[in-house]
Amino acid sequence: MSKENFIDAAGDVSLEQMQLPEDLAGLNIAECKLLCEKIRELLINTVTTTGGHLASNLGVVELTLALHRQFHSPDDRIVWDVGHQAYVHKILTGRCDRFATIRQEGGLAGFPKPCESPHDAFVTGHSSTAVSAACGIAEAFRIQGSPNYAVAVVGDGAATGGMFFEGLNNGGKTRSNLIVILNDNECAISKNVGAVAKYLADMRSSKGYVQTKWAVERALGKTPVIGKPIAGVLKNTKDKLRQNIEQTTMFEDMGFVYLGPIDGHDVEELDEALAVAKSYHRPVLVHVRTIKGKGYAPAEANPGEYHGIPRIDVESKNPEISTDECYSTVFGRELVRLAKEDKRICAVTAAMKYGTGLQFFGAAYPQRFFDVGIAEQHAVTFSGGLATQGLIPVFAVYSTFLQRSYDQLLHDISIAGLHMVLGVDRAGIVGEDGETHQGVFDVPMLTAIPHICVYSPATYEELVLCLRKAVQQDKGLSAVRYPRGHAPKYTLGTKANTNFTHIQGEKTLLVTYGRITAEVGKAADALRTDGISCGVLQLTTIWPLDDAVLEIAKEYENVYFFEEGDEVGGIGEKLAGMLLESGYRGNYRHNAVHGFVHHASVERCLEKVGLTASEIVKFVKEQHNG
Amino acid sequence: MSKENFIDAAGDVSLEQMQLPEDLAGLNIAECKLLCEKIRELLINTVTTTGGHLASNLGVVELTLALHRQFHSPDDRIVWDVGHQAYVHKILTGRCDRFATIRQEGGLAGFPKPCESPHDAFVTGHSSTAVSAACGIAEAFRIQGSPNYAVAVVGDGAATGGMFFEGLNNGGKTRSNLIVILNDNECAISKNVGAVAKYLADMRSSKGYVQTKWAVERALGKTPVIGKPIAGVLKNTKDKLRQNIEQTTMFEDMGFVYLGPIDGHDVEELDEALAVAKSYHRPVLVHVRTIKGKGYAPAEANPGEYHGIPRIDVESKNPEISTDECYSTVFGRELVRLAKEDKRICAVTAAMKYGTGLQFFGAAYPQRFFDVGIAEQHAVTFSGGLATQGLIPVFAVYSTFLQRSYDQLLHDISIAGLHMVLGVDRAGIVGEDGETHQGVFDVPMLTAIPHICVYSPATYEELVLCLRKAVQQDKGLSAVRYPRGHAPKYTLGTKANTNFTHIQGEKTLLVTYGRITAEVGKAADALRTDGISCGVLQLTTIWPLDDAVLEIAKEYENVYFFEEGDEVGGIGEKLAGMLLESGYRGNYRHNAVHGFVHHASVERCLEKVGLTASEIVKFVKEQHNG
Repeated sequence: MSKENFIDAAGDVSLEQMQLPEDLAGLNIAECKLLCEKIRELLINTVTTTGGHLASNLGVVELTLALHRQFHSPDDRIVWDVGHQAYVHKILTGRCDRFATIRQEGGLAGFPKPCESPHDAFVTGHSSTAVSAACGIAEAFRIQGSPNYAVAVVGDGAATGGMFFEGLNNGGKTRSNLIVILNDNECAISKNVGAVAKYLADMRSSKGYVQTKWAVERALGKTPVIGKPIAGVLKNTKDKLRQNIEQTTMFEDMGFVYLGPIDGHDVEELDEALAVAKSYHRPVLVHVRTIKGKGYAPAEANPGEYHGIPRIDVESKNPEISTDECYSTVFGRELVRLAKEDKRICAVTAAMKYGTGLQFFGAAYPQRFFDVGIAEQHAVTFSGGLATQGLIPVFAVYSTFLQRSYDQLLHDISIAGLHMVLGVDRAGIVGEDGETHQGVFDVPMLTAIPHICVYSPATYEELVLCLRKAVQQDKGLSAVRYPRGHAPKYTLGTKANTNFTHIQGEKTLLVTYGRITAEVGKAADALRTDGISCGVLQLTTIWPLDDAVLEIAKEYENVYFFEEGDEVGGIGEKLAGMLLESGYRGNYRHNAVHGFVHHASVERCLEKVGLTASEIVKFVKEQHNG
Repeated sequence: MSKENFIDAAGDVSLEQMQLPEDLAGLNIAECKLLCEKIRELLINTVTTTGGHLASNLGVVELTLALHRQFHSPDDRIVWDVGHQAYVHKILTGRCDRFATIRQEGGLAGFPKPCESPHDAFVTGHSSTAVSAACGIAEAFRIQGSPNYAVAVVGDGAATGGMFFEGLNNGGKTRSNLIVILNDNECAISKNVGAVAKYLADMRSSKGYVQTKWAVERALGKTPVIGKPIAGVLKNTKDKLRQNIEQTTMFEDMGFVYLGPIDGHDVEELDEALAVAKSYHRPVLVHVRTIKGKGYAPAEANPGEYHGIPRIDVESKNPEISTDECYSTVFGRELVRLAKEDKRICAVTAAMKYGTGLQFFGAAYPQRFFDVGIAEQHAVTFSGGLATQGLIPVFAVYSTFLQRSYDQLLHDISIAGLHMVLGVDRAGIVGEDGETHQGVFDVPMLTAIPHICVYSPATYEELVLCLRKAVQQDKGLSAVRYPRGHAPKYTLGTKANTNFTHIQGEKTLLVTYGRITAEVGKAADALRTDGISCGVLQLTTIWPLDDAVLEIAKEYENVYFFEEGDEVGGIGEKLAGMLLESGYRGNYRHNAVHGFVHHASVERCLEKVGLTASEIVKFVKEQHNG
């Protein structure tokens, strides 16, 4: 489109009037800078209202712009690792008008979603997958004879995940158009996140070496950046020069051309680096340095406080790191108390110190606290190593990210019967982060592990009791799972315990566990008011099931199970099987989550899957009348 | 013990008379060499009879000996990655007398097993876990103030697994006594296994550089190798020297001291290198070169043929790579036929080309064949990348190793509804490899993934039909699972199909799927002879369950489900739940595997879990009379 359509006489750029991403290529550098300002404004105004990831998106404004200038999405495919930094990408690919709806029910998703736009190349939400996905896309292009590029954008935090290395290892040997952008915002820099972070820090600090290198790349690769044949000649020359003047990097060792570090807030430098990267027609890694939160006044006025927390909690999906009382902080504080009594207790996190409430432990017992970076597989097996020496590792992790550790839990921990405790945070519906983050699959996964004990407390008091039991009394692998956020105010009013709670009723029993016990309890109250007496059975130990649970259920004509987790492989399915085998002849219904739950508030998600008090009342009445 | 007790006048060493591992330290180099010969003799004589891993163990004879000379197991902990190369370790740690029982029921396990011996530091059987486990052990030592060492022995094949990097990344930043032995037998060297292999090859070939380096280490570290203080001084000197004369390696970039390459068949050089490694008191990586099959006459007479196959199939647990007809070859051959018809079909393996029968595909369509090395996570997400571009990836993988991909299947494939096919080989009991390798957990895992379709054919003909349907007709994620080895001769004699087969009976229905359909069929025949008429319902599509399956089951008074897979989360549990919810009032029993199954022959394992024809007959009669 002609520039007149979106740049007025005074030179002001209108984001809304642009045809995106097509119009980006025609902008000059000054216009790009102006556009970046507009984008930052939109980001700040929107995200401070809707919630979501602000700092990481502010950091990639220029990078995203440059990517869409140099690559032609959706023909070229851009895969955003973790995905929470794709807001600018959404704005620049025709979703500017709907940006205010982000993370809200029916609105834009907070993560890339191919069904939302052809520009979203791959579902991302979990870390360190982008190089593997882009490697597959690039190989498909090669097979199909397509000249297109596959680009993976990976934060340095995600570079600690093993999948990133598996991807590099396989990508580095191809001869495909694979470009990896390492978005290095130093978020992984802390004493806890390991050698890769240290390595990147070393690369950044050794200016002479890297700057010289980039200067050579520039001198040989530019003016003008041209097609394959000439670039090939240049490349050979460069390679010879390079051997004499430079050391190799880890990425070059793995088969990638290394370019960098590039100033990720300089569109001109980015343009040039990406053009050079394209000219190679072989795997290239572009190391881009960005500043998280770039351009946001509060961050600039108080960078220490502002950057301090998100910088470490690299994969945190919500800026909910307050020390307000919530399940995570109750867990974290209790663990400190336990660790005071017992020096064997260690705490492990995979880059989620604040999200899981382990900051208290980290401060109190730094020698027994391990932040392994985004490396859930290592976290479990490392914990197993600690356990073999008689220590008691407690790994606190979000339900959805624990999926990475299935094999390690089964093979490295359970076969040997090692004593390890999982704090499974964000278990159940998480809401606005949507299907990539709902914690509804941990129960089928965990219960498949022989000899495990799984607790799902409803209240803070129960959480404390379950954690103490898991750490102090259990022998093998135990998991204590609890939801995101605050405990409901409503409780059954009974004495907290780690086993189960039964409130007697007449013909109908409502069985449940965890946070939605409050919804089931409220439903039972409402039904009682309407003359329908329902018993309530709240499980706190959800696996293995106590024989007494079976006996109680068998006393009722109707047993309805309500489960904030997936139906398939859920506790409701297991109880049904046990009831049938034990000769139960009543009516049984299992109300649970069916597959992936789209983004919306937790309350709305629960309502949609039929797990709020009013939906439960409706269901029971239907059964009663039907 | 005095040497006279195990060395006779002629200088001959008696392995049986030694007190192991204690006596190893007192041997001179000549005696070590003699002992190595004895060990090789024992290995060859035993393993050619019992089956198991011969070549990989022949390759680590000197290395294992040197490890037990320099480290004091079980105070120092040696973790064997993958674990199939721990036979020599078993021989040298008091299990020489029982070595002939290896992999046999009641005998020594083919993998390290802490409950078998205190010298087995960690359960290993799956790849790339040892650095993480040893890192945990080393950190425990640090916390406890113990001066002991944690040693991880990792093959170069396992170095392609992401966990290896997660482990190095975290290990490299510690200040603990962590020593990683990279046992480089070039088994991962093929054009298919990626950049790490290429990197190691480069290191090996650039003799000048590495030899110089090692020479420096030796010159500064030896004569005599002494305690901490002096070694510290030497280390600093070395570090300064090193900066001037050498490039750094990838491992040094990650925080490890790099020593190597060392000749892994020279006990003297190994002794020295390990002594130097111990002196650092910080993470050290020792790069040891060994020859797989070293010292075995057939291998030396015909190294090409002998090394050719195990070299690539690095994680293969059995030398069963013949082209005899078996489930794997039927799968592999059919996939070639399908790929001839449809150019979109790609095949992916994680270092199991021969084990999974993909060698035919690799030969026929090398451009569409991908061996990603031991990297099951990458394999799935890479396949997802291929799928986004309209290709049809088929990932053939052993059931037990697929556990590594749970998160990728759920998050990267299923949410987006990408079309991908899994060939789940070694599904069910595998026998002699024991609990680390039984394929009894894939059904709970796979069925927890929304929208998946799971097939479990019993015969070759059904396998072909299921694979064709999965590839050609299904839309999202499908899995075709089949056992190790040959199909049973017995069949139900009905027409093969992909859905289910029902043979009418009177009051009792026997439900099953997969290979043990033959056992259930034979049991039904035997019961019929005894006047008990049982129906047989064989499921071929095991998930989701067809409504017709439910209707058939409801016609029977007794429904007994027989499942070659774990009880918890199995199909038998799901059918029970569905039957109860649909108002079924009959008797139901679920006969399945309960947790981990110890090593024994497949037949014996099936018998122990009650899944042979005679056990099934016994069970039905008990129910009938009881």
